[in-house]
Amino acid sequence: SYPRRAVAAPASLSPSPLTASLQLGDVIEAQQFDRQALNEIFEVAREMEAVERSSHGFRSRVLEGYLMATLFYEPSTRTRLSFEAAMRRLGGEVLTTENAREFSSAAKGETLEDTIRTVEGYSDIIVLRHFESGAARRAAATAEIPVINAGDGPGQHPTQALLDVYTIKREIGRLDGIKLGLVGDLANGRTVRSLAYLIAKYQNIKIYFVSPDVVKMKDDIKEYLTSQGVEWEESSDLLDVASRCDVIYQTRIQKERFGERIDHYEAARGKYIVDKKVLGVLPKHAVIMHPLPRLDEITVDVDSDPRAAYFRQAKNGLYIRMALLKLLLVGH
Amino acid sequence: SYPRRAVAAPASLSPSPLTASLQLGDVIEAQQFDRQALNEIFEVAREMEAVERSSHGFRSRVLEGYLMATLFYEPSTRTRLSFEAAMRRLGGEVLTTENAREFSSAAKGETLEDTIRTVEGYSDIIVLRHFESGAARRAAATAEIPVINAGDGPGQHPTQALLDVYTIKREIGRLDGIKLGLVGDLANGRTVRSLAYLIAKYQNIKIYFVSPDVVKMKDDIKEYLTSQGVEWEESSDLLDVASRCDVIYQTRIQKERFGERIDHYEAARGKYIVDKKVLGVLPKHAVIMHPLPRLDEITVDVDSDPRAAYFRQAKNGLYIRMALLKLLLVGH
Amino acid sequence: SYPRRAVAAPASLSPSPLTASLQLGDVIEAQQFDRQALNEIFEVAREMEAVERSSHGFRSRVLEGYLMATLFYEPSTRTRLSFEAAMRRLGGEVLTTENAREFSSAAKGETLEDTIRTVEGYSDIIVLRHFESGAARRAAATAEIPVINAGDGPGQHPTQALLDVYTIKREIGRLDGIKLGLVGDLANGRTVRSLAYLIAKYQNIKIYFVSPDVVKMKDDIKEYLTSQGVEWEESSDLLDVASRCDVIYQTRIQKERFGERIDHYEAARGKYIVDKKVLGVLPKHAVIMHPLPRLDEITVDVDSDPRAAYFRQAKNGLYIRMALLKLLLVGH
Repeated sequence: SYPRRAVAAPASLSPSPLTASLQLGDVIEAQQFDRQALNEIFEVAREMEAVERSSHGFRSRVLEGYLMATLFYEPSTRTRLSFEAAMRRLGGEVLTTENAREFSSAAKGETLEDTIRTVEGYSDIIVLRHFESGAARRAAATAEIPVINAGDGPGQHPTQALLDVYTIKREIGRLDGIKLGLVGDLANGRTVRSLAYLIAKYQNIKIYFVSPDVVKMKDDIKEYLTSQGVEWEESSDLLDVASRCDVIYQTRIQKERFGERIDHYEAARGKYIVDKKVLGVLPKHAVIMHPLPRLDEITVDVDSDPRAAYFRQAKNGLYIRMALLKLLLVGH
Repeated sequence: SYPRRAVAAPASLSPSPLTASLQLGDVIEAQQFDRQALNEIFEVAREMEAVERSSHGFRSRVLEGYLMATLFYEPSTRTRLSFEAAMRRLGGEVLTTENAREFSSAAKGETLEDTIRTVEGYSDIIVLRHFESGAARRAAATAEIPVINAGDGPGQHPTQALLDVYTIKREIGRLDGIKLGLVGDLANGRTVRSLAYLIAKYQNIKIYFVSPDVVKMKDDIKEYLTSQGVEWEESSDLLDVASRCDVIYQTRIQKERFGERIDHYEAARGKYIVDKKVLGVLPKHAVIMHPLPRLDEITVDVDSDPRAAYFRQAKNGLYIRMALLKLLLVGH
Repeated sequence: SYPRRAVAAPASLSPSPLTASLQLGDVIEAQQFDRQALNEIFEVAREMEAVERSSHGFRSRVLEGYLMATLFYEPSTRTRLSFEAAMRRLGGEVLTTENAREFSSAAKGETLEDTIRTVEGYSDIIVLRHFESGAARRAAATAEIPVINAGDGPGQHPTQALLDVYTIKREIGRLDGIKLGLVGDLANGRTVRSLAYLIAKYQNIKIYFVSPDVVKMKDDIKEYLTSQGVEWEESSDLLDVASRCDVIYQTRIQKERFGERIDHYEAARGKYIVDKKVLGVLPKHAVIMHPLPRLDEITVDVDSDPRAAYFRQAKNGLYIRMALLKLLLVGH
């Protein structure tokens, strides 16, 4: 007989911290992962390097027959290509849409929930990019298949946070005892906020904030770090900070945040540049990271230094996304 | 020796009704299918449910090596994803273009026929979405590979019509003797017109039209139904109709059809809503259908009722498209 | 231990002419191929016809597990679909982006080099379409994976040049001793310029230029042909030229080149039309070619003549691109 399964009523399905068995249901926000979950994800990500290396002339069967829908309500080519490459490197298939807004265009006005219910009928996992904070959580509450948040407006971008922490582990060899310099726009960048949040789960962390006055790190993160026993301080001396750190995490000053005050933007933009002078004082084992894209906040002559880790960091996004797809679809 | 095959001159290739052997060449319009052809397509669609269920960890080889081009002259993400999912679930590959107009941009002015001749060199089947009525028939007359009409302007959208009829069969268990309530915009919706056309091929059908005065079902369909021995009547009492029907097929009132007369739109829009009250009188075995997207013509609290069939209906679109792709490319 | 491979500093990596072993690194410009390299590519292209024919029901494993990124900074659906079909016919996978400008949008300002370094982490080969002359060379100098130029602004479009020469060889059976009529816009079309350049590598070539005065072939190509011992002459008598040639290569007069002078455009546009009269004098063994799209510079009644080679020519683009992908990724 024909199963008349009713659509589940929207529930306030809040992703719970992962436990030892790593029952990963959805990836919604960086906060959902505890230290043990992070370590398991990183372990799988490490295995993915070998899967990728062996992919030439051989198609992985890990996700054979699985279909991922990339449902993007705003374009983000970088993130989309990374997820699609991850799925394909594991032998899975992809349904792409970069203009998901058309699903629910002005004239039509379909809700996100209805769109999700339709798309989940065509695919096995949904990667959602949306312009509204909280959209990923709403999608996950509706869908009976896994949802990965690929950025929801000013909200979360958890896979970026995971790849940042993974890159530190991969480059430095550990996460406990890390000295981390966060540089640039610390007020607006969700990247640095999520990174500060996640790194606080490790022991003996020291964070230096180096930023123009107009884009200083906000108090909520400072208070959170203090509550977690993380030492932090603000500094205006990038060279001094660079000489003490394991990781310098540079970010782009975002022009669009300054509105009419182009003068403020220009002042902020030129203030802390990672260049050869910074490399000169940076410890030999340390690395420079950046979430990309960069403008000129890291000079091009830094690229050829082995400590310039930002393109390796971008590549680690592939391994992290492969790991998450594998964990969500077939488990460890 | 090199085959200098000439391009076939455009012929008025009219798709003929399918016969027992189901020689399916192109899918251009709902009218091309007779009752026997419909039944064969539905039989294959039913088999596709099992193919889809077994796809995890296993890639179907039914359409291995086949390449489908989705040539969309206007975006229709919903329809495109459904076709692409269908092709992938059968192990086939996809070439996507959502901006096919660029092929023949203003400055360039290539004809549809020339575009089709180029694209057929790259693929094994073309799924065409176009803004002009009759475009699919022109494409099919040109192409030596199969063409599926995925909507051509105010013209036809035959795969929607097929999935609607298939859903009735799947939900109610039969097609003969169905009592069907068509609700909402009956003047402009090509969906309800095609559905009325196809359901008339079955025995003892009764249709109720429930619509605001400004968007009543047009006379051509009424006359056609009468000529086919289908009973129909108009009603303004949705609750009464719902209590008598096997299927309530609700549709969206399309704002764009009302031009300046927003007052007419607002009056029409709120008049017939499927809500808990309708569920209260709807027989236990009956179902609510809707081609989606919906606005508020079905209230969200209806979704959790097992008789809300509209998301299952969307899913049936996948099975119908899988069936058509299989029939067109490798036969039954 | 973790390999901290530095990103290679941009070098002026100029593609060297291919030698017998056909060490194909990148495909940047038509000039990089010598006669021997051309012949090897054409040989592989010929083999690709069989690979394509056998693809139904069987997925080629030639490029199994390889991932091609189509990085298009301006849309070119025709070229993109051709490359993507080529990759899929060989069993490879595709990452598509048609709005690569979004990578480096105004607000963000990422350099092409940074984008390339990111994308090369996700894929095995990059097909680049760009609006700036020289972009492909810059990309190739940056990437450690192969780059194919799919058109860079007013610069090069080498795969079009290769498929044109391949089509002459395939249709006429040889390349030495060819009599070639180039017709239409010879001043602006990069296609005819590249074709003249490549065909000059063969023996006993004779070229006729037939074009309205305002779009005559420029002196640099004429001088080059003379220096290579290629005979050429200008003619205003298309029928006379057609009666003497092996190949008539017609091109579109591009309206956008005439700016305000619509009168000049209209005069140029109607002047040399390939029609039934041209077919009447064209030798039986000769062919009509055109890079497509066409407007009315070849009349539609020519299409059904076996000597109308332009849709076969478009199809040869598939085989040439399959050959290049195979040669660049796994060698001969």
